[in-house]
Amino acid sequence: TTIIPDGFTVRRIDSRDFDGAKVALAGLTTVGEISQEDFNSILGYWDSVLLPNGKQAYNTFVITAKETEKVAAIGTVFVEKKIIHNGGLVGHIEDIAVNSDFRGQKLGKVLINYLSSIGKQLGCYKIILDCDEKNVGFYEKCDYNKAGIEMQIRY
Amino acid sequence: TTIIPDGFTVRRIDSRDFDGAKVALAGLTTVGEISQEDFNSILGYWDSVLLPNGKQAYNTFVITAKETEKVAAIGTVFVEKKIIHNGGLVGHIEDIAVNSDFRGQKLGKVLINYLSSIGKQLGCYKIILDCDEKNVGFYEKCDYNKAGIEMQIRY
Ligand SMILES: CC(=O)N[C@@H]1[C@@H](O)[C@H](O)[C@@H](COP(=O)(O)O)O[C@@H]1O
Ligand SMILES: CC(=O)N[C@@H]1[C@@H](O)[C@H](O)[C@@H](COP(=O)(O)O)O[C@@H]1O
Repeated sequence: TTIIPDGFTVRRIDSRDFDGAKVALAGLTTVGEISQEDFNSILGYWDSVLLPNGKQAYNTFVITAKETEKVAAIGTVFVEKKIIHNGGLVGHIEDIAVNSDFRGQKLGKVLINYLSSIGKQLGCYKIILDCDEKNVGFYEKCDYNKAGIEMQIRY
Repeated sequence: TTIIPDGFTVRRIDSRDFDGAKVALAGLTTVGEISQEDFNSILGYWDSVLLPNGKQAYNTFVITAKETEKVAAIGTVFVEKKIIHNGGLVGHIEDIAVNSDFRGQKLGKVLINYLSSIGKQLGCYKIILDCDEKNVGFYEKCDYNKAGIEMQIRY
């Protein structure tokens, strides 16, 4: 069980989070020019992708401030079906961002713990994520260990 | 365009690859006790998961020996829809394995090039993968660069 700090709520992302999600994610990387309609259609697509057990493969959650409904943090655990490990499931934690107005309140750790528990409940044998070397210490505090090197090709 | 060595074919995985896929993947990690029926149902599930553009999200390919139909190598590019990068797509290269009887023929590089071209065609703005430090040199020869650290939690 994840302890949610006073004054905050964790819930699945919905169409109200259009501005808040964009602002938080802009702290992570390029977001681009998506409209509210684009945003809604991404959420609709995510809802449509199911695991063999009927649960959702894309699990994007926001931590919101109770009074203002502002998005303080956002993150995803996206679940992959494999052949290995007896047809096992792997969770991919992706696109973790904390709005700069809400830094220093340990919301990042709360969110990682929450997403990890979602992945575990879905039956993942492991959850993985890729991060900068400078964030390794943070993820270690969230009970993650170094597992390998992320390689990329960009187009 | 990827050049396929003489005597080999690249194609999407199918139910005939049950034994060959298991043998190749056993060189990578634990496969477990999956039956032909389990295998078929994983392939059926994979076929059912579509991207917003209607293309398949799971793209698992095998390189087979033309004469014997043996699986020489196997690998997947699994595509994720994001909010960032204008609702961009990211390809995840997963579960790359070359059967030990077919090592030293550069089939690993052929497969990575092939899967990368599939991901590029599908519109991915990047393709990522996680590997052991000892395989970094191999992936650099496949035009991948170090991007970060893979962290994991196991259950
Ligand atoms: C744990 C975590 O949040 N990792 C993120 C990843 O999910 C995100 O997609 C990427 C965006 O970077 P890009 O803009 O270079 O693709 O940055 C980080 O690796
Ligand atoms: C590029 C590549 O093939 N990387 C693989 C990954 O796809 C696979 O799922 C994992 C299995 O390891 P595990 O048995 O510890 O989960 O090994 C490697 O990281």
